[in-house]
Amino acid sequence: MTEHTTPRTGHVALIGGGPAQPDLITHRGHELLMAADVVVADRLGPRGLLDELREDVEVIDVGKTPGRHTATQDEINALLVDRASRGLRVARLKGGDPYVLGRGSEEREHCRRHGITVEVVPGITSAVGVPAEAGIPLTHRGLSRGFTVITGHDDLDVVPRSEQHTLVILMGVSTLRRTATQLMVNGHDASTPVAIIESGGMEDQRVTLSRLHAVADVAARRQVANPAVIVVGAVVTLADDWPQQLDTATPAAPAAAALTSL
Amino acid sequence: MTEHTTPRTGHVALIGGGPAQPDLITHRGHELLMAADVVVADRLGPRGLLDELREDVEVIDVGKTPGRHTATQDEINALLVDRASRGLRVARLKGGDPYVLGRGSEEREHCRRHGITVEVVPGITSAVGVPAEAGIPLTHRGLSRGFTVITGHDDLDVVPRSEQHTLVILMGVSTLRRTATQLMVNGHDASTPVAIIESGGMEDQRVTLSRLHAVADVAARRQVANPAVIVVGAVVTLADDWPQQLDTATPAAPAAAALTSL
Repeated sequence: MTEHTTPRTGHVALIGGGPAQPDLITHRGHELLMAADVVVADRLGPRGLLDELREDVEVIDVGKTPGRHTATQDEINALLVDRASRGLRVARLKGGDPYVLGRGSEEREHCRRHGITVEVVPGITSAVGVPAEAGIPLTHRGLSRGFTVITGHDDLDVVPRSEQHTLVILMGVSTLRRTATQLMVNGHDASTPVAIIESGGMEDQRVTLSRLHAVADVAARRQVANPAVIVVGAVVTLADDWPQQLDTATPAAPAAAALTSL
Repeated sequence: MTEHTTPRTGHVALIGGGPAQPDLITHRGHELLMAADVVVADRLGPRGLLDELREDVEVIDVGKTPGRHTATQDEINALLVDRASRGLRVARLKGGDPYVLGRGSEEREHCRRHGITVEVVPGITSAVGVPAEAGIPLTHRGLSRGFTVITGHDDLDVVPRSEQHTLVILMGVSTLRRTATQLMVNGHDASTPVAIIESGGMEDQRVTLSRLHAVADVAARRQVANPAVIVVGAVVTLADDWPQQLDTATPAAPAAAALTSL
């Protein structure tokens, strides 16, 4: 390989890898990933795909674990611009979708400000794909006509109160007790079904099913941990493991008693 | 081919095809589609993939156009059970994701009640993928921390009022004027940016950018039509064609005047 005297124009592909399963990436995403000279990969997402890369591909792991940051967002941004500026094809492999709470938009803006062309490839967001792995649709006629996606750190006054609406909470395990209480204070029925799907789509996937008034205790007892997707709403009764299908009309405990027990 | 005296077990794959582009289907979805004996296809979604099928595959088009139903939901349900009951591998190719307003969950329930095994493969929902085609991320630090997906026929009192939240409306063109008015009555700022993306990802994609107080008139003037995805929120200012980047602080018209002009 010879050094180029004039810099070639680089390129960054922001690829939504979808959930953990390698075969849930899109054809376009997979093609761009396999054509890359450099792959910048997150901790979550279809990491199995990294084994398919050519041997000469530079793989940079910027995966973040809670409390142990492998790379800051600024470092990631700088990395993308640096490699692309050298004329390399950079694939930024992200879990889920780049534009759903993945800071993909920030990375795109940063690259563009530095004159780097960015292509964004959508991915299956874990907000949709992970509940599906547990048999939970986000909408279902008679149970839900729409859905809201927030993080556990978001304001809970933005949450719709309609019963025919599903709430999906990402990164919400540590704030679950506060969230559940606040939802009930906001008018959500204490018997609203809740599912927590840990390690969605992975071999160690675990689904915890409960109701709003009890879910924080159940989650604590089962030592529920991230990564997890929390689903709140009547559609949870469609989950593969829900004891009695469509029993939303029968609360597990009287709402008043449940609220007191908090 | 000889007739089997004992019925073989059939199988239905509910495949999310994603938006219109054929290369935005997942690897798993594509594999199941190509292995099918029967393909039951919607009007929307990656219809280009139908050209890749083997010649002996039965393709059934159940695509619905507004006002001209090619097949009712009951007919589709019956069709899936009929073909799977004959021991055939049925691929139900849907636009977007099967579990996001696609009635996929109903089809799954119906098949299961008839003893048919169903596999659900997530797809890129148009609620996420179509805004991305116009350069609009659903979340962006400082602009939006979450999003809500509803249809134009849904109750608008479920809509969050937070400014750092994106609203995505599917099937909302015919009800746009009522929706925009109701959002402002509910407290949304009249200058909130709005994007309407028609034919997302297709060759004739068209993006209309406006603000809440004016969007109904602008859409009427431009004769905006389905299929379209409507995005309401500050993230719209990140759209490829937005005139001034990040000018959310400057309303196009005073809110009071805008409200009066309705």
